[in-house]
Amino acid sequence: MFQARRFQHCPTCGGLIDYRIPADDNRPRATCTVCGTIHYENPLNVVGTLPVWNDQVLLCRRAIEPRLGKWTLPAGFMELGETVAEGAARETDEEAGARFELHNLYCVMNVVRVGQVHLFYRATLLSPEFNPGPETLEAKLFHEHEVPWDELAFHTVRETLQRFFDDRRRGEGYPLHTADID
Amino acid sequence: MFQARRFQHCPTCGGLIDYRIPADDNRPRATCTVCGTIHYENPLNVVGTLPVWNDQVLLCRRAIEPRLGKWTLPAGFMELGETVAEGAARETDEEAGARFELHNLYCVMNVVRVGQVHLFYRATLLSPEFNPGPETLEAKLFHEHEVPWDELAFHTVRETLQRFFDDRRRGEGYPLHTADID
Repeated sequence: MFQARRFQHCPTCGGLIDYRIPADDNRPRATCTVCGTIHYENPLNVVGTLPVWNDQVLLCRRAIEPRLGKWTLPAGFMELGETVAEGAARETDEEAGARFELHNLYCVMNVVRVGQVHLFYRATLLSPEFNPGPETLEAKLFHEHEVPWDELAFHTVRETLQRFFDDRRRGEGYPLHTADID
Repeated sequence: MFQARRFQHCPTCGGLIDYRIPADDNRPRATCTVCGTIHYENPLNVVGTLPVWNDQVLLCRRAIEPRLGKWTLPAGFMELGETVAEGAARETDEEAGARFELHNLYCVMNVVRVGQVHLFYRATLLSPEFNPGPETLEAKLFHEHEVPWDELAFHTVRETLQRFFDDRRRGEGYPLHTADID
């Protein structure tokens, strides 16, 4: 089972951490050997959009690690103080500088291996012009046959794009997709 | 904006934490004054089910804080090493000891005030018998008119139940609901 075990010291008092199974629990937790506080580690949400302009999709080429130089949908870690939709919109603004209208929550994908859930909203671009931020080398529109499938940054980006093109061909709308990704 | 600010010491080296805005960032992060490591704080997922037996729904009366004695759908914090669906199923097993079949992801609700996203799957119970765990005082089936609306533990439980009864009356299926809850 995936375990983060990223604590060596207690964030509360600075004491040494030991990973122990608490009395009323069934898995090891970061437990302070000094003050006894238990610190939990849980999956994180990555939130983003699938932005569409007519029959093209927007991808961003990453200017940062991981996967520097690879293409991604605009997405990043959800922050405290925002909803999933607000986070998805913020990332689209930060990474692509795009103007868009947000639609429905389209993909919820578990990436258990890295302790993440990726959530993508569909979006319609209001303009084909972009103003990418420092995390993006280039923001560009792609027809389906132009998508750089071998140069995509993340499996969830590939899976989300594939479902979108399939749904578009089928012509019966864009229902929620849930999936588990290796 | 909601900020956790739960770090006083660095989980890596035990040094004192200062909340600073990193050079390439726009919000304060827990930054170690000794080793310089930045520790991020992000929203957590609460995952659960809406279990149905014929025209009744299953609720659990909480044996633990918060909201001890109040009624809830089976749900809890998503753990590392599991998918949203696996977490929802685990909580239903732990809190109700129910046998069930899981259906679609039904509600994704932001509770920004506490930095949480609540995700509920629909489920059909395979038996009206339960074996609640230590976190539950009582697991019980309710017709719509019997639901203890004033004794529910969480707003997202109320909102999920209301949407379910509305959808059932409408008779057109159970599509995904997204909502922002105060």
